[in-house]
Amino acid sequence: MSESGKIATVLLSGGLDSMVTAAIARESGFRLHALTIDYGQRHVRELKSASSIAKKLGVERHVTLPLDLREFGGSALTADIDVPKTGVADDIPVTYVPARNLLFLALTTAFAESSGSSDLFIGVNALDYSGYPDCRPEFIASFAETARLGTKQGVEGVPFQIHAPLQHMTKGDIARECIRLSLDPAWSWSCYDPSPQGIACGLCDSCRLRRKGFAEARVADSTPYAADTDD
Amino acid sequence: MSESGKIATVLLSGGLDSMVTAAIARESGFRLHALTIDYGQRHVRELKSASSIAKKLGVERHVTLPLDLREFGGSALTADIDVPKTGVADDIPVTYVPARNLLFLALTTAFAESSGSSDLFIGVNALDYSGYPDCRPEFIASFAETARLGTKQGVEGVPFQIHAPLQHMTKGDIARECIRLSLDPAWSWSCYDPSPQGIACGLCDSCRLRRKGFAEARVADSTPYAADTDD
Repeated sequence: MSESGKIATVLLSGGLDSMVTAAIARESGFRLHALTIDYGQRHVRELKSASSIAKKLGVERHVTLPLDLREFGGSALTADIDVPKTGVADDIPVTYVPARNLLFLALTTAFAESSGSSDLFIGVNALDYSGYPDCRPEFIASFAETARLGTKQGVEGVPFQIHAPLQHMTKGDIARECIRLSLDPAWSWSCYDPSPQGIACGLCDSCRLRRKGFAEARVADSTPYAADTDD
Repeated sequence: MSESGKIATVLLSGGLDSMVTAAIARESGFRLHALTIDYGQRHVRELKSASSIAKKLGVERHVTLPLDLREFGGSALTADIDVPKTGVADDIPVTYVPARNLLFLALTTAFAESSGSSDLFIGVNALDYSGYPDCRPEFIASFAETARLGTKQGVEGVPFQIHAPLQHMTKGDIARECIRLSLDPAWSWSCYDPSPQGIACGLCDSCRLRRKGFAEARVADSTPYAADTDD
């Protein structure tokens, strides 16, 4: 039950991390609003998962905003570049979308401000840091300060708070949270490159990290996969 | 002529300020890319001006990105709220669009990063500060730091520089710059609420500030207006 009636504005991609983040916000007593960005990603299946998660978690207002980043190019997630399937590398991956979290946090701020919500929830976590600069805690903190300075809500005394409850969790921790919160993993979608039949490939970075997480946590992932990794 | 071949990525709304900003970037030796956001603003006439300015200034890549902020609501520029015509007030105006410049700068950063440009140009100026928090210099500086932390380009050593060449100019200064740079004021569009025939109203905040600027600078504004102010 919400004691405060405060609204959490959740950036809900439809992936495992954002599903668990939304459920944590709800458990903390927030009412839920959610924003999903349809940015021309190859894995549109994620958008269906976002809608279904929003319904299951009782989100009061869910907006799916079209934003065609293919106009800009530059990422394997939106352009015609092959998604790698040979394993997770250490550098910034080709699936990096230019300034994505900067953009998505800005959109979440605009959405939150328009409905008077000052609590933003985003599912970035420890494992994302190495590859994606826009997942690092110092970026998130700097964004919060920028949003405070650049919005009516920030200036008039209700600064935005950016909650990243998975920040220090591994994928294993997140898998455990998923089960603890009674969420079915298969409601969420992680795969960057599903089969034509809509089955998760099992081999892209995102599938590999997800499977490793459930394996580490020794809990079952109910998601079917098209192929097994050789890890 | 460009000595460096460096690209300036200009946020080009189609208004007077962004036109003058783009011309200053060109004069400084940059090649021009421009981003226009079609955010469901009432004054779509501005978008036509942006295209025409881009052609006249020799912009090499001009993207007009649809982004339907009407989904969020909350501003007289995108929602069904009357645009005030009785004069410019001191507080944050109803034409404030939630987190607009935060969002537009984030989009400009994403566009710039996708084409390897690290110089962003935005037409904010002194007169905007009082009303719009997202035009203040401390916001722009904080945004630059956030973009540095949250992008591949920033992390790998080519931080974004945000140029706001009109920052300390009044509307009068901008009108003078417009003439000095041989730009026709009527290429640009400022009115928030044009007549059905597409004539600038002359009475909204944006028309009032523009007319005041040209009057102060004692230079002619070639734009036709539907009504005269009683100032």
